[in-house]
Amino acid sequence: MNGLDFDYELNHTSSNNTNPLDPEEFRRQGHMIVDFLADYYVDIEKYPVLSQVEPGYLQQRLPKSTPHDLEPIETILQDMKDHIIPSITHSQSPNFFAYFPSTSSIAGFLVATELEMIVMDGLGEILNQPNSFPFSGNGGGVIQVTTCEVILCTMVVARDQMLRRDGRQNIEKMVVYGSDQTHSALQKAAKIARIHSKNFRAIKTTKSTSFTLSPDSLRSAILADMEAGLIPLYLCANVGTTSMTVIDPLGPLCDVAKDYGLWVHIDAAYAGSACICPEFRHFMDGVEGVNSLSLNAHKWLFTPLDCCCLWVKDLSALIKSLSTYPEFLRNKASYSKQVVDYKEWQITLSRRFRALKLWFVLRSYGAANLRNFMRSHVKVAKLFEGIVAMDKRFEIVVPRNFAMICFRINLPSTMVLESINASGRVYMTHTVLEDVYVLQFAVGVGV
Amino acid sequence: MNGLDFDYELNHTSSNNTNPLDPEEFRRQGHMIVDFLADYYVDIEKYPVLSQVEPGYLQQRLPKSTPHDLEPIETILQDMKDHIIPSITHSQSPNFFAYFPSTSSIAGFLVATELEMIVMDGLGEILNQPNSFPFSGNGGGVIQVTTCEVILCTMVVARDQMLRRDGRQNIEKMVVYGSDQTHSALQKAAKIARIHSKNFRAIKTTKSTSFTLSPDSLRSAILADMEAGLIPLYLCANVGTTSMTVIDPLGPLCDVAKDYGLWVHIDAAYAGSACICPEFRHFMDGVEGVNSLSLNAHKWLFTPLDCCCLWVKDLSALIKSLSTYPEFLRNKASYSKQVVDYKEWQITLSRRFRALKLWFVLRSYGAANLRNFMRSHVKVAKLFEGIVAMDKRFEIVVPRNFAMICFRINLPSTMVLESINASGRVYMTHTVLEDVYVLQFAVGVGV
Repeated sequence: MNGLDFDYELNHTSSNNTNPLDPEEFRRQGHMIVDFLADYYVDIEKYPVLSQVEPGYLQQRLPKSTPHDLEPIETILQDMKDHIIPSITHSQSPNFFAYFPSTSSIAGFLVATELEMIVMDGLGEILNQPNSFPFSGNGGGVIQVTTCEVILCTMVVARDQMLRRDGRQNIEKMVVYGSDQTHSALQKAAKIARIHSKNFRAIKTTKSTSFTLSPDSLRSAILADMEAGLIPLYLCANVGTTSMTVIDPLGPLCDVAKDYGLWVHIDAAYAGSACICPEFRHFMDGVEGVNSLSLNAHKWLFTPLDCCCLWVKDLSALIKSLSTYPEFLRNKASYSKQVVDYKEWQITLSRRFRALKLWFVLRSYGAANLRNFMRSHVKVAKLFEGIVAMDKRFEIVVPRNFAMICFRINLPSTMVLESINASGRVYMTHTVLEDVYVLQFAVGVGV
Repeated sequence: MNGLDFDYELNHTSSNNTNPLDPEEFRRQGHMIVDFLADYYVDIEKYPVLSQVEPGYLQQRLPKSTPHDLEPIETILQDMKDHIIPSITHSQSPNFFAYFPSTSSIAGFLVATELEMIVMDGLGEILNQPNSFPFSGNGGGVIQVTTCEVILCTMVVARDQMLRRDGRQNIEKMVVYGSDQTHSALQKAAKIARIHSKNFRAIKTTKSTSFTLSPDSLRSAILADMEAGLIPLYLCANVGTTSMTVIDPLGPLCDVAKDYGLWVHIDAAYAGSACICPEFRHFMDGVEGVNSLSLNAHKWLFTPLDCCCLWVKDLSALIKSLSTYPEFLRNKASYSKQVVDYKEWQITLSRRFRALKLWFVLRSYGAANLRNFMRSHVKVAKLFEGIVAMDKRFEIVVPRNFAMICFRINLPSTMVLESINASGRVYMTHTVLEDVYVLQFAVGVGV
């Protein structure tokens, strides 16, 4: 951030935090993990190739909640060595002659699945989620690749539920709703799920209501569609849009959706993570009424791409749509209700062990530090906002909710942005709102 | 493999190869890469935040072909330092205020895209692909997540092409074809693309033809469907099935598909990689006639999950189906035809830099070593096959094509497999063929 005016303040805002990308700490932990993995390959033939554990194994051995304070990397690696490594299926073992090399299996990933369940419940807990989302309710969480994938999955579930209902069999009549601020992932998912492009509603929002989706506009759109013989299917509401971190009014939108039987998904890709801070949790008010919710840990939860967390309330609907049962994936565990079979929760069959990185993040920092990281981002954003607000050449276009400021300047903004980015010193982006070219300043890395 | 009878022979088959999972080499390279990355984070503010390069930059600086012999890790890291690092957009920089942290953009990934194009063309070259697949033709390659995703993408393209044709607008009538040996990914993709479950054809295969899909059976199925007013849409042919590495007769199947206008996709998830060996390339004969082809580098090309390589012949059809254009992703590069925009080639918008790991694999080993690794796997499989064939208690169920043997035993096979796997000493799997429980022995790791 050299050269910007608020260097001094900045350097004094985050002194109590560990920088999540401190190069020397990265180096220390990196070498430790390389040795851990190399030692594992040395010892690999000492372990039974196929996981020998019974369902529930890991839940008795690892802490279920996200810790409040950070835990040293040594403790986490020790848990990994004591509980996870001895119990996984060792697909890189020279004695692994199953399926094809590197291929996963249900039995093989019993432990990976249990860790994912622990991580998703633990994250849900610090997000203060309603009781209907965790595994102890009827719901559950899964880590997928990106928001596009989770929207597609949930839309397919909603579509198939509707197709199963008598007399409502026409896919050509189904309608998907979002605001004009909704991520293009919704449109893409709708195309793939074969919702007709003329039945995709990007409901207009205005500056006067900070570009939020109006429940009245939603109801009018639904009524007009029903009048025309169409079938309202799916609503994607936003908690923190890509353009301006807009928060749609979840409670009132869910009330409308409930009246007409729509599936409601919340795309909280960026801002969902912030809801681990009590002061931001109110942005999620109304979440009790939705069917599914996703956030990207790879956006604001200090986890590398890709790590998209999805929770659903009604697991059985999900599995009914996405399940296939080829013989070669059947085994004892998948016939038992005790075991979650994540391939039935998503598009792909093979899966990486994504829970591991999120588990490391949650434990390495602890809830308190994660909250502090976010607060320091917001503090920097507030500083920037203050500087912009003091200068009459600039205008703040929409109220700031988190750590992004949308502003404009009384100059040709395209040229300003191009010259800023061409300098190589900082990189910012833009969006267009009501034909106005708006600059975006988003804080979230290394400060 | 301690304890198995062929220890001696085994130890003398692969002595000329570097073990791709040698723990001490892994340790050496791992530490080198940790230092490389830590140094990068130390220096990150020295680079322009936003990539300042023009399209074509990387193609002039890096070798385009896969080397025949291995290159030392030091050379590859030097290329990375000299050409890739200075030219990427540094999304982890403290001066990155664009989009949200860790989020990708088209401009930001110009170099990642170019490396992916180089890698996919370079891999296509050693696979001896027809001229229609590389970027120099009308086609091109992309790295996606898994086979499920690529089948879904290509099926959606085929479906939308068909829907655009006059008078053939009924999605309820479209039919998807494969053999009963085809991976369940086909069924899953068909469900998501909303091909009606009654229009999914898993054409029966028999032991007498080694479980290959018969072109005559395909033609009969198509004709029966057309007779019933249905619309044949998509065929997935196999080069190496999951159950038994079955190779479908590509040429004759493409002839049938061409007569009725079907899209043909080859699922070569496992065995496709083997076609870099001239002695296995004939299994791909007929590839000229297909529309798309995929293989998983994470199966038999020594690359970690996930890395699914897809090539298509007609890019414009793909992009027509999968493109969306939100304002916040538009920039100079995406308006230009010079630049490939991979988010238009797949389901998701965000993407990891998967090309990097495949590029490291291709250069670290070189084509010659990769071929030797595979040959050593096949050699071990042949040894095992010989031992099984000599023992009258066993029967080889289908001819071996690559490094997997399917066999049965004159004992209750379920119990045999369970007791083998419970020993923890090796792990094998099973499949069921014509109601016979078959054991699978697949060689591919560490030998």
